[in-house]
Amino acid sequence: MISAQQIHEIPSEVLKYIHGPLGAKALKILPPECANAEAVVFVSKQAQLDSALKHNASIVIAHKDLQIPEKSHACFFTTPHIQLAVATVAALFDKKIQRFQQEEHIHPRSFIHASALLGKNVIVGSGAVIGAETHIGDGSIIGANSVIETHARVGSNTIIHPLVFLGAYCEVGSFCEIHPHTTIGADGFGFVPLKTSHPIKIPQLGRVVIGDHVEIGSNCAIDRAAMTETHIHSGTKLDNLCHIAHNCEIGENSLIAAGFMMAGSSKLGKNFVVGGGAVVSDHVEVSDNVMVAGLSGVTNDITESGQYGGYPLQPLKDSLKTIATMIHLTKMRKQLSRIIKHLNLSED
Amino acid sequence: MISAQQIHEIPSEVLKYIHGPLGAKALKILPPECANAEAVVFVSKQAQLDSALKHNASIVIAHKDLQIPEKSHACFFTTPHIQLAVATVAALFDKKIQRFQQEEHIHPRSFIHASALLGKNVIVGSGAVIGAETHIGDGSIIGANSVIETHARVGSNTIIHPLVFLGAYCEVGSFCEIHPHTTIGADGFGFVPLKTSHPIKIPQLGRVVIGDHVEIGSNCAIDRAAMTETHIHSGTKLDNLCHIAHNCEIGENSLIAAGFMMAGSSKLGKNFVVGGGAVVSDHVEVSDNVMVAGLSGVTNDITESGQYGGYPLQPLKDSLKTIATMIHLTKMRKQLSRIIKHLNLSED
Amino acid sequence: MISAQQIHEIPSEVLKYIHGPLGAKALKILPPECANAEAVVFVSKQAQLDSALKHNASIVIAHKDLQIPEKSHACFFTTPHIQLAVATVAALFDKKIQRFQQEEHIHPRSFIHASALLGKNVIVGSGAVIGAETHIGDGSIIGANSVIETHARVGSNTIIHPLVFLGAYCEVGSFCEIHPHTTIGADGFGFVPLKTSHPIKIPQLGRVVIGDHVEIGSNCAIDRAAMTETHIHSGTKLDNLCHIAHNCEIGENSLIAAGFMMAGSSKLGKNFVVGGGAVVSDHVEVSDNVMVAGLSGVTNDITESGQYGGYPLQPLKDSLKTIATMIHLTKMRKQLSRIIKHLNLSED
Repeated sequence: MISAQQIHEIPSEVLKYIHGPLGAKALKILPPECANAEAVVFVSKQAQLDSALKHNASIVIAHKDLQIPEKSHACFFTTPHIQLAVATVAALFDKKIQRFQQEEHIHPRSFIHASALLGKNVIVGSGAVIGAETHIGDGSIIGANSVIETHARVGSNTIIHPLVFLGAYCEVGSFCEIHPHTTIGADGFGFVPLKTSHPIKIPQLGRVVIGDHVEIGSNCAIDRAAMTETHIHSGTKLDNLCHIAHNCEIGENSLIAAGFMMAGSSKLGKNFVVGGGAVVSDHVEVSDNVMVAGLSGVTNDITESGQYGGYPLQPLKDSLKTIATMIHLTKMRKQLSRIIKHLNLSED
Repeated sequence: MISAQQIHEIPSEVLKYIHGPLGAKALKILPPECANAEAVVFVSKQAQLDSALKHNASIVIAHKDLQIPEKSHACFFTTPHIQLAVATVAALFDKKIQRFQQEEHIHPRSFIHASALLGKNVIVGSGAVIGAETHIGDGSIIGANSVIETHARVGSNTIIHPLVFLGAYCEVGSFCEIHPHTTIGADGFGFVPLKTSHPIKIPQLGRVVIGDHVEIGSNCAIDRAAMTETHIHSGTKLDNLCHIAHNCEIGENSLIAAGFMMAGSSKLGKNFVVGGGAVVSDHVEVSDNVMVAGLSGVTNDITESGQYGGYPLQPLKDSLKTIATMIHLTKMRKQLSRIIKHLNLSED
Repeated sequence: MISAQQIHEIPSEVLKYIHGPLGAKALKILPPECANAEAVVFVSKQAQLDSALKHNASIVIAHKDLQIPEKSHACFFTTPHIQLAVATVAALFDKKIQRFQQEEHIHPRSFIHASALLGKNVIVGSGAVIGAETHIGDGSIIGANSVIETHARVGSNTIIHPLVFLGAYCEVGSFCEIHPHTTIGADGFGFVPLKTSHPIKIPQLGRVVIGDHVEIGSNCAIDRAAMTETHIHSGTKLDNLCHIAHNCEIGENSLIAAGFMMAGSSKLGKNFVVGGGAVVSDHVEVSDNVMVAGLSGVTNDITESGQYGGYPLQPLKDSLKTIATMIHLTKMRKQLSRIIKHLNLSED
């Protein structure tokens, strides 16, 4: 249950109070057409606003360009940025932190090496294993059955969900969130093929460094570098089932959808945005502010910011045309055949 | 070791006893050409039947249209549905449940919150963590080192294998099976990109609801909804390494091969069948009884039942032609060049 | 810290001592341009050698064809195979084994069934679960929170990293390494679709057998066979997020990049090499010594050794041309249109 008063305390760049009862309460965020007297509703069109009022919404947050009624039972706020308003208000309903609350901050069934350094208010779940010489910053959470190997570091206010692996010497910054079954710091894939024996392993001596405010989805694999560091810079968000190979670097504030795979030693600039299932080859460099469509294959450097797509990669506009043309391929081949016959040319 | 008598107890719609010793025993299911006197063998062709007999098979299960010999040492059954007969008889050999047997039903090294409600005959493996206010139904198994967060629910007779994550408030039905390293109920991928800061997280307040008789392979990621529910309906089976994003819905009795990825808020109808490595974009709706070939990309609604394939998606027949034509692309380009020269046309 | 003396002890087929102080020490392997007085440096070009000397490298390992200076402060070795030399020397710096050292070999928070047989010097991490009737060979490591089910076997000198699942009756050989969140021996995907009910499971009664010197990356899924064995032969290396379905076989000394997916009952020969994100259909057979480019789809048997790529698969050279031609598709369609108009032909 949240109150309009709590919303009122959000900075006014995000949400501005207009009028109505600040004592109004809400149990849920609901879409305008499903609203009820215990709902907060976000509206960016006049019809949505009418619907919210008709359904008796308790708290209405409207885009600032809408016409707000002078009188109504609802408590009204406006915002210049609906999505940001949603994110901010939804945070008031978020009870995630309660999942980790337990009788004792350090669960008696966890194992923490004597040389580990834990900050204030660190929570360690049942079965979690925290190795020698590790540092865990203030207010961070290590979920149940997660494994933090020796010399690894976690900043402050970071959530390591249950069943996460953080390898030796690797670092995760502050205000991060790492979801279950993600592997940070397994070995990179480096082998010397030989004719006379099985391939020989190149020991992977580097580590992974992850900045602040980074979120990594579930079931991802981020490999440690061969010699140096695999680096995911601050503010970057990865979805589920992503693979980041050894020595890679991902610039700040990037948004990477599910199933992304990035081969070794490639480097992505800041604000990289990519759709699902895209792939980047090894030793590729991508400049800042690049957007790549889902299912694309980036096999060469991208030196100019802009939107791209396809495999091989093209400017997005061209790529959409190429993909759309694909379904005409059979017909095109028949047309060619007819023309060749018509002109009495040879096939080859 | 099973006996022909046990097979005789299977309902006669599946398997009908013909003749032979009901005391016959078998240790294994073997292909006809590898049969021996301790084997049960399934045959759908006359040559297989001859081979099974030549190899002295102990129990023979033949398609009902085959000619059964009037005399032989083997015990004979017929079936109208060989695959279903295999599934039914193989179940008699299945010793999976023994993997979970332990001295005490509740392993002393598990952690179960005092407020958790466990049904009759629940087995909880070593290191499993079961949070506050959870319900686990009768006869269900929570594998070693799995984590069931607060308020989650598991129906009856469900197997949660080891190392599974089931997030807070999420539900798995009855008679389900969830394989290792699968994540159910991690956060969906929702962020507001901003010019002045790192992307801001939209808290994911919803949950995952999974019906009855659902099987989910290993290393899958099923995200909780942003506000409402991600829903996998009863009878649906997912293979390994699948990604189901927030707010998705998958209809009943669907069969989804490995590496399937489904972006946010999409909805698949009943009896959806899809090959490996296929992808569905966000906000796509697919009607009932649709089959999509592997490696396809579904980027638009499918409103008619039928078979489809390719990227962009086409009716399956057309898609197979398109894919087959691909290898002629280089030659087609050369032919075009020649024609253009021949006709004295310009290239553009 | 390693010394030139330790390098001197490496077999001379790999590294040959030339001259210089065998007491020279090094803390790190560094590239020539970043070398310092505590670095070992590998050089395969004259300019790199000059750079290493200029930066005062402590130990220099040069390709045998380079001209070694007669005098310098550095300790010099030559090698016929730079990559192999890197792998061999890097192994001297590898401290991985220290991650697993703990006060007691068998961590007091692990659970080992009384009937499990553990060899000499086996290390078992906190929270690891080792089931009944298992065998773990001499010198092997079972990482924290890993689960080894009943009757499974692990050879000698194998590292099972933390959070690995090894299913009942499955086998991993000697000198193997299995990375976190990998699932070995979950059920294969086998169901009988029925019109009158949800799909019926075909119990998966087989197992997984993994040879010696096999490495499997993180977050992979290797399914047990339906009746027999899924087999990964000795010397084969898999990268992260690979899916190997039931009944598959992968030949010796294969190198398989991330995201590889292989559907049921397929068989790859020896020395198979494949780039990232490639896919093999079910029931496909691939002969020895085949190389397949990343993002390819192998849907038919490959009967001759060689290099291939694309989907549909072509010889690699042709496939590269096909892919390169893709970006001309839109233009080709326009050209065709123009020609058809020019010739007064009909579109169809």
